Amino acid sequence: MAMQQTPLLMGFILDRGARIAPNEEIVTATETGVRRQTYKETRDRAHQLAHALAGAGVEVGDRVGTFMWNGSRHLEAYHACAGMGAVLHTLNVRLSDKDLAYIIDHAQDKVIIADADTLPALEVLKDRMPSVERVIVATEEGFEGWQTDLPNPIDYEEFIAAQPTHYDWPIIDENSALGLCYTSGTTGNPKGVEYEHRSQYLHTMAQCMTDSMALSATDTILGIVPMFHAMGWGIPWSALMLGCKQVMPHRFMDPARLLDLIVSEGVTLSAGVPTIWQGIKGLYEAKPDELDLSNLTRLTCGGSSPPPSLIRWYWDTLGVEMIQGWGMTETSPLATLSRRVMKRSQLSISEDEQFENVAKAGQLMPGLELDIFDEELNRLPHDGETVGEILIRGPWICSEYYNNPQPEKFHEGWLITGDVGKIDPEEYLIISDRSKDLVKSGGEWISSVDLENHIVALDGIAQACVVAHPHPKWDERPVALVVLEPGKEVTSETVIEHCGTAFAKWQLPDDVLYVDSIPLTSTGKMDKKIVRADLDAQGYELPDLRGQSAG
Amino acid sequence: MAMQQTPLLMGFILDRGARIAPNEEIVTATETGVRRQTYKETRDRAHQLAHALAGAGVEVGDRVGTFMWNGSRHLEAYHACAGMGAVLHTLNVRLSDKDLAYIIDHAQDKVIIADADTLPALEVLKDRMPSVERVIVATEEGFEGWQTDLPNPIDYEEFIAAQPTHYDWPIIDENSALGLCYTSGTTGNPKGVEYEHRSQYLHTMAQCMTDSMALSATDTILGIVPMFHAMGWGIPWSALMLGCKQVMPHRFMDPARLLDLIVSEGVTLSAGVPTIWQGIKGLYEAKPDELDLSNLTRLTCGGSSPPPSLIRWYWDTLGVEMIQGWGMTETSPLATLSRRVMKRSQLSISEDEQFENVAKAGQLMPGLELDIFDEELNRLPHDGETVGEILIRGPWICSEYYNNPQPEKFHEGWLITGDVGKIDPEEYLIISDRSKDLVKSGGEWISSVDLENHIVALDGIAQACVVAHPHPKWDERPVALVVLEPGKEVTSETVIEHCGTAFAKWQLPDDVLYVDSIPLTSTGKMDKKIVRADLDAQGYELPDLRGQSAG
Repeated sequence: MAMQQTPLLMGFILDRGARIAPNEEIVTATETGVRRQTYKETRDRAHQLAHALAGAGVEVGDRVGTFMWNGSRHLEAYHACAGMGAVLHTLNVRLSDKDLAYIIDHAQDKVIIADADTLPALEVLKDRMPSVERVIVATEEGFEGWQTDLPNPIDYEEFIAAQPTHYDWPIIDENSALGLCYTSGTTGNPKGVEYEHRSQYLHTMAQCMTDSMALSATDTILGIVPMFHAMGWGIPWSALMLGCKQVMPHRFMDPARLLDLIVSEGVTLSAGVPTIWQGIKGLYEAKPDELDLSNLTRLTCGGSSPPPSLIRWYWDTLGVEMIQGWGMTETSPLATLSRRVMKRSQLSISEDEQFENVAKAGQLMPGLELDIFDEELNRLPHDGETVGEILIRGPWICSEYYNNPQPEKFHEGWLITGDVGKIDPEEYLIISDRSKDLVKSGGEWISSVDLENHIVALDGIAQACVVAHPHPKWDERPVALVVLEPGKEVTSETVIEHCGTAFAKWQLPDDVLYVDSIPLTSTGKMDKKIVRADLDAQGYELPDLRGQSAG
Repeated sequence: MAMQQTPLLMGFILDRGARIAPNEEIVTATETGVRRQTYKETRDRAHQLAHALAGAGVEVGDRVGTFMWNGSRHLEAYHACAGMGAVLHTLNVRLSDKDLAYIIDHAQDKVIIADADTLPALEVLKDRMPSVERVIVATEEGFEGWQTDLPNPIDYEEFIAAQPTHYDWPIIDENSALGLCYTSGTTGNPKGVEYEHRSQYLHTMAQCMTDSMALSATDTILGIVPMFHAMGWGIPWSALMLGCKQVMPHRFMDPARLLDLIVSEGVTLSAGVPTIWQGIKGLYEAKPDELDLSNLTRLTCGGSSPPPSLIRWYWDTLGVEMIQGWGMTETSPLATLSRRVMKRSQLSISEDEQFENVAKAGQLMPGLELDIFDEELNRLPHDGETVGEILIRGPWICSEYYNNPQPEKFHEGWLITGDVGKIDPEEYLIISDRSKDLVKSGGEWISSVDLENHIVALDGIAQACVVAHPHPKWDERPVALVVLEPGKEVTSETVIEHCGTAFAKWQLPDDVLYVDSIPLTSTGKMDKKIVRADLDAQGYELPDLRGQSAG
């Protein structure tokens, strides 16, 4: 070998931020304000945590569960586990106890680090997690007096106190497991995606490219996407490497508190699902003169596609660029990204055309391969019209599920994503829908996402959710649920007429239902599974079928 | 394995630019103007070249020599060899025939692709390169009538014509050889550095990071550093991946032509050695009102340290940021980089302090380890004062020389760089000198680079070169050679007095010699080996020894 065979281990990059920017801050929201600590302190505490975990019997490859919000101690757990070769298993604090019990047992978590406020949710599982030997409790303001009958509990600070502040990160195989994240499908048990050192190392480098999320050490990043969701989109890793300021919202996920953090900490870049940016937009509009958002330059948006009207509002009102990303737990998660201008030829197109780009899922990241396929898995043309199953492959794409391979989700080395979309002649991916959210009507597909984006652009509509409802003749027909803005009225005729300006007659929703809110998944996306189940439970009938079922 | 084991092959990233920006341009300077071709054409031609090379018997692992300037066909050779798994051996067209004969034979080049204008230099070697079966001649304007008695010659266009425009890049081991570049040391034969797919893939991703060279698809890049020097600093690879516009100067390396290309092609970023930027500065100052340099934003500088006065001139006069990089053939080559602002805490320091950063070699790139060591190879403190040998390791650092391991250049997995320097408390590397260029006087070290930077800041001095001259008592003493700006006069007393404002008495040059030019190496650095040899050949004597030797 002519070049050094340094393994691609996270340990080689995650101490870097503390080395080059030791005094930079990690800010965590608390009940009454914020806690601050430096990168140097965070690094030292992470090394202490690694020693403490080793002392508790955690070895290379053992799973360490975290049941935590975004905060400095969760970041330390990322840092410590990655460094020492333990497997960081981020548990979604919003999952059902049934799913959590399954996941903890399936992963065989040896210890769990939990935020004190989440203990009640964990205590429910007390007798259903035999692998867990010990629970380490991260105490925050307001929860100092926690008590629990979970196994062998200890306060986080007591756990790491008096441990040495340097741990010699071991040199392990670069394909060793780094983290575990379970994804809940529509059917069956949750499936575990196991990230490896090599895959996440490459993902981190790709995320920090200028033409990617353009993360920089000069940024102040507010990662709103939970760190238990697809490694917090990779932001904790990138930030540790770069040494940029990090602001962490902990359990305070309401738009008002987030907006306050953005203003008071001078956030330059934030990342979260579109519903968050909808909420913040509403708050800003209520008092635009009181809020200084001049530091903010980029909002990274993922999980679902942001409505073009929202993208445009942020740019026109605040000069803030929305960056759309597409990916999933199985893709580490960044796969495609869309920015206003991503190549030279776009410098000279109109601003309107530039914003059309951001409404697309975007350009594939370097190093990955992606294509659209028909049902026989033949490649389809990139004409911006033909819709097909999206398959993807590359060094940070899942090849099987943890201890549950599910070969039907993979095809000749490709991941079958379950999303459908098209690719335009400029090689931009456009997501039509999750394949399970598409409306299949009379043998044709209707994109629920397209209808939603169109409806939400209508003045007076705060949110729109389109779902399929069974129909005896057409198979399925679209139904729109809308949330009105406070004090506004929009008739269903107006909604349908508005859709008629952009969609064919057979694509228009059969019905418009007014609701107070749309149920969200634990990751903040609209939960269409719940919406469909609710309609069924209510005995909802499509307008043209009403009265027939009695017959 | 839970993640896909996609090997890190250049083939997975180098077709990307042509896919996302098929109409973007590759511009090559010619005798009377420029040649333009698109990325799509370049990609297709590269695939054709791969087919033609395969037809000529080139297999995976075979060495393909290039004897070429920076131009579209050289880029196609990069692309084709990397894709097909051949080893691109970039031959330095400025080397002596002795070195070239050694290198071609040592590498066992199977074919050589040569620019037609370079044929005379190659013909000298005709009987000394038995491994070479065929020479492919890239014809440019003015050389259409070339003739040669080199083996089995063919015109490049004829060679690739009628070949298919798609080659299925083979999947090979990621540690396979990608390229070869020989470095000429002070003693002995040139040594070959063999780049691998994995090492260059990682280097490419690192180069495109925001906090690195921040390369983007929206850039127009003029790579002045020759593509036969350390893979053109990696720029050809990054540009192929990103799809940015590339401007290639071919053999027209005079500052006037380069400046013309920068203006006429709207170059945003260029890369070359400091002497180039000195020359362009001089030309600009002669007619500042006629030159539109408004597109230019960054100049990347490497090879040797740019004088702080030059860095400041570009910023104050043109708003152009100089980015200093440090590395060598053995480091692929990027190792450290320095920009005006590289972390948040630097946003609030004064502009003067920001520019002090750029005068340093800079921050270590993510993924690498670097430290300074004493003669027993113990680590030294990062206090900004202690000077030591610089050692480096990481996934794109050489671990041995090609078929000539030289274990004495390595130490426990580290490369002993041959440079000496210090590291300041902000973790910035500051290069004191090449260890062979340091002046060792009375047991202490004097940095020739520091003296040169100080002297060149003096009004009227165009260039300064400080070398060691043997002294019977002090071992060595510094001598300064200076080139005056046209029409200016600066006395040697002024130079010495000026040095006295920043250096101790024993560090001042013993003599100031006025010369018309400083000899340069083939890569554009001042060639101190030649300067020292010339002084010896002239029988030069230090002032305090004059007249003694006759005694």
